[in-house]
Amino acid sequence: MTTLYGYWRSSAAYRLRIALNLKGVGYGQVAVNLKDGEQHGEAWRAIQPQGLVPVLEHGQDRFLQSPAILEWIDETWPEPALLPADAAGRCRVRGWASVIACDIHPVQNLRILKAIAQDLGQGPEGMKAWAQRWMQSGLESLETMVAAHERSTPFLYADRPGMSEVYLVPQMYNARRWEVDVSNCPTLVAADEAARALPAFAEAAPEAQPDAE
Amino acid sequence: MTTLYGYWRSSAAYRLRIALNLKGVGYGQVAVNLKDGEQHGEAWRAIQPQGLVPVLEHGQDRFLQSPAILEWIDETWPEPALLPADAAGRCRVRGWASVIACDIHPVQNLRILKAIAQDLGQGPEGMKAWAQRWMQSGLESLETMVAAHERSTPFLYADRPGMSEVYLVPQMYNARRWEVDVSNCPTLVAADEAARALPAFAEAAPEAQPDAE
Repeated sequence: MTTLYGYWRSSAAYRLRIALNLKGVGYGQVAVNLKDGEQHGEAWRAIQPQGLVPVLEHGQDRFLQSPAILEWIDETWPEPALLPADAAGRCRVRGWASVIACDIHPVQNLRILKAIAQDLGQGPEGMKAWAQRWMQSGLESLETMVAAHERSTPFLYADRPGMSEVYLVPQMYNARRWEVDVSNCPTLVAADEAARALPAFAEAAPEAQPDAE
Repeated sequence: MTTLYGYWRSSAAYRLRIALNLKGVGYGQVAVNLKDGEQHGEAWRAIQPQGLVPVLEHGQDRFLQSPAILEWIDETWPEPALLPADAAGRCRVRGWASVIACDIHPVQNLRILKAIAQDLGQGPEGMKAWAQRWMQSGLESLETMVAAHERSTPFLYADRPGMSEVYLVPQMYNARRWEVDVSNCPTLVAADEAARALPAFAEAAPEAQPDAE
């Protein structure tokens, strides 16, 4: 029995939904309402001390942090593989994933944007400018990295979607939501569109989740 | 031939130095002077489009992003293993690493602190408060997670240092530098101290690097 504790708009939860769908793993979902602040309550902090989602429950285990859970999913259900078969290829794909996981997403997630708007007094406009700034520069750097890799399909590394698209699609969703200029990122835009046309991605979309508002 | 492009005070470069030392891998170092802005120059951006360090060069390959490079190091030189032998253990350790790699370090690294101080007008004091806030809350959450794991030595997961300490020690270095209150993190403090007493960690310390000022 596999249960995903998440939130429809959380991009880290979105990553896990895509990965589980690509593997064909059935899972239940429990929503933690980030909009209502449920993540700050004692009950949720007893499960995830940071007050963040997602958490993946599998049998007696509860796993935290999407980058770790994605590796676990790929190890537990090896087919289809999310990572390349060779170590250099894996390093390249994990590096692209890290650009999103470590340098783009964390500085534009909910808690940081709230702090920028409220605690640092930048207001809604300042918050939007902050989100756009780091997303645009981060995605443009990622575009430069991936454009250097040869490809025969729109997907970033292989002829089918893998770990790169698991991270890319939720980040591009955020970019659209915040009206980020991605005109300099044609490779990323093409990979995102091709991936979203597939059922594993379409069924993982925020708007397709039971808790979507 | 393995060459680390880094900077003495970069915690991501510090992680790689520790990992290479733990594996007993010899490597050369090339300094990219972050203080002088060398990372923003065209020459460096041709290597790392984000303008970040570290980069690891190995033969004809150049790898980016420390979380990806650490996995590559562990795959390329398997002994001693940095990750547990079982999938659930690996997920736990990678999760702890991600708390640092994704939720603590990225919001207090050089480019973000500069933006907070200068672009958002918070000045040196506001910058320090920002750094302290996310480091303290992040480390306290990590303390809660690791304290739930039983141990017989000061190290976080196994009876010797591994991936957890590779991420922890550079983050605790930053915490000391920014005078973060870590009094609620006794498990992390003990692991950091035990690790730093070992040659692999001592030789990786920022002050022990050729470019230290």
